[in-house]
Amino acid sequence: MTSPSHPRDTVDPEAAVPPAPAAEHREAFRAEDAAHRELLHGELEAFLDRQRGVLAGISPDALPLLESVAQLSSGGKRLRARLCYWGWRAAGGAAGEPAVARAGAALELFQSAALIHDDVIDRSDTRRGAPSVHRRFEALHAEQGWALDGSAFGTAAAILAGDLCLSWSEQLFTAAAGALPGGTRARQVFDLMRSEVMAGQYLDVQGEVAGAAQDRAGAVARALDVVRYKSAKYSVEHPVALGAALAGADEELLARCSAFALPLGEAFQLRDDVLGVFGDPATTGKPAGDDLREGKRTVLVGFVRRLGGEEQIARLEQALGRPDLDAEEVGRLRGIIEDCGALGATEELIDDLSRRAAAGLDRLGADPVAEAALRALAEAAVRRAA
Amino acid sequence: MTSPSHPRDTVDPEAAVPPAPAAEHREAFRAEDAAHRELLHGELEAFLDRQRGVLAGISPDALPLLESVAQLSSGGKRLRARLCYWGWRAAGGAAGEPAVARAGAALELFQSAALIHDDVIDRSDTRRGAPSVHRRFEALHAEQGWALDGSAFGTAAAILAGDLCLSWSEQLFTAAAGALPGGTRARQVFDLMRSEVMAGQYLDVQGEVAGAAQDRAGAVARALDVVRYKSAKYSVEHPVALGAALAGADEELLARCSAFALPLGEAFQLRDDVLGVFGDPATTGKPAGDDLREGKRTVLVGFVRRLGGEEQIARLEQALGRPDLDAEEVGRLRGIIEDCGALGATEELIDDLSRRAAAGLDRLGADPVAEAALRALAEAAVRRAA
Repeated sequence: MTSPSHPRDTVDPEAAVPPAPAAEHREAFRAEDAAHRELLHGELEAFLDRQRGVLAGISPDALPLLESVAQLSSGGKRLRARLCYWGWRAAGGAAGEPAVARAGAALELFQSAALIHDDVIDRSDTRRGAPSVHRRFEALHAEQGWALDGSAFGTAAAILAGDLCLSWSEQLFTAAAGALPGGTRARQVFDLMRSEVMAGQYLDVQGEVAGAAQDRAGAVARALDVVRYKSAKYSVEHPVALGAALAGADEELLARCSAFALPLGEAFQLRDDVLGVFGDPATTGKPAGDDLREGKRTVLVGFVRRLGGEEQIARLEQALGRPDLDAEEVGRLRGIIEDCGALGATEELIDDLSRRAAAGLDRLGADPVAEAALRALAEAAVRRAA
Repeated sequence: MTSPSHPRDTVDPEAAVPPAPAAEHREAFRAEDAAHRELLHGELEAFLDRQRGVLAGISPDALPLLESVAQLSSGGKRLRARLCYWGWRAAGGAAGEPAVARAGAALELFQSAALIHDDVIDRSDTRRGAPSVHRRFEALHAEQGWALDGSAFGTAAAILAGDLCLSWSEQLFTAAAGALPGGTRARQVFDLMRSEVMAGQYLDVQGEVAGAAQDRAGAVARALDVVRYKSAKYSVEHPVALGAALAGADEELLARCSAFALPLGEAFQLRDDVLGVFGDPATTGKPAGDDLREGKRTVLVGFVRRLGGEEQIARLEQALGRPDLDAEEVGRLRGIIEDCGALGATEELIDDLSRRAAAGLDRLGADPVAEAALRALAEAAVRRAA
């Protein structure tokens, strides 16, 4: 199961829009992807049911912890789990392997844990169009008429729910890795992924407070570091590599996975940054401009600092991190980001990264169905509106 | 390595003060315990050095995360790691096994993660006589003259440092478990431990807000649930069982470990609750009365609700959870807890649990050095002043 090779030589690696895969492969991918999602759903449900039993045995009062995780984990696009599955298939793994769906379920629980804590850190009220976990616990406090500070209770409960979810993610990953030949190598990916995403999140919050004082010349590079570690590696590169490693991929194949998946992940996160400022709240499920209110030092902000005039930069710096920014002010900031060329530069970067991802996918040499799948997921990640 | 049996028949299981082990075994335990602490220290240092390399590779700006964990993990009594080691030895494991010290290091990192998040949840300023991790990051923010809210930055950084530490703990545990024959059974203990402690912590914070409205008759029982899950199982029962499981202990031996370690853990946490109200801040490293300011529904509080007069109960309820309680008010509450018999009832419970632990230790059938070790650790846990 190492280094399968199906070289393609008919593709222009510079093509901005990758060629559509043959219809038959697209069909096959859709059917298999749907079957995997069923498996994934089943693995998650079964695992959470077992944990519901564990918590109920401790005290029924502890069950809201589980329900908060289960509710959050029932949504989402399952991007990481699907990338893991198709990474496995691209490296020659057999279709429909339940242990790979289990590894995917572990990734989804890791994502839930990260979102729960991220929302506490960013003081976000909503997630996937519903109240964030700390807000849910705050609401429980109000409903029950409990004493003391409901907001502090919400934060405490969300920290603990995230911790529990983090442990569960690892517990499920261990079960998956133990059942597959590439489990030991995959664990290295899993461990690195966790350290990188937490360090990347720290760089993100550190950038919020330290960014204004740091040099303008390095602002885009620092923002790209956050993009890479907080998101690109975690959301795309490592899931693909994890699946491939589980299938027994050698280092050369893992490097080819990264050559496709890292630029894709960067494009994915840059798209997220653009949506965070320019997206439609009805579609994204998050208020427009929240990245600005939180003071995130995104690549958009980095480009304004590089390309903007003094007055534009000063106006952005004054507004960044102000939780009370209203829609009108967000609109004005959008104008600055567009007018100075920062939006265009970011879109150009997304295009460039997408091209590199497409070229990397061509060189991956996956079987046609896996290739069609990865191409479709890549398209969805970069061109999405939410 | 299953069920070693060295039955003792010369010990009175009801003796409140267990007989001193023979001097030679005490000596042997001290030397071996010190050697294990050296090993443990080395495992922790080596692991954190590797992680320092990983974080430095991401960005030197991320290193404060590691330093906060390293600083916190350098202190403490290493109770959990030592109980794990002596559980291993009690179950027939060989002296000086490095992989067991590695499992102990994983437990110490788990404890660090729990403390970091616990201090955020309880808004504690100090830990082990030094600033808590969120306060350290707040201080870094002030030192560097960074922008925006330093307290929010401290909380965010501490949540991420705790998450990282949680992942590291598991990473190290996996390395240890993979090297020993009982690794699979030990992992079950590790997984259950993590779910139980997080659920127990949730019950603790839920009790703070919901406790006043709950029935008085059940108050002691609910407080004992928190004692059991948040602390007794996690701090004592599971570490001993983990060590024994790593040595290949069968279910019967694991049950005998619990019969000793669970009452010991309960006594340990009840001692902690007493120290939380009556301890000397110079020795405990925490301000006296913090449990009262946080509104913790400890067994002491439960007993006041059972044994106190209406006026005493009302005065305690009015004060619980008020962050501004001054030393004089804490002194008055101490008086209530003593006068109504709640302190005495708690001390009686500690004595009873200590006796059950001693009897359980007699029946454990560990070799004399391991028995001397567990007896000394048990004594230290229950009779400590900090």
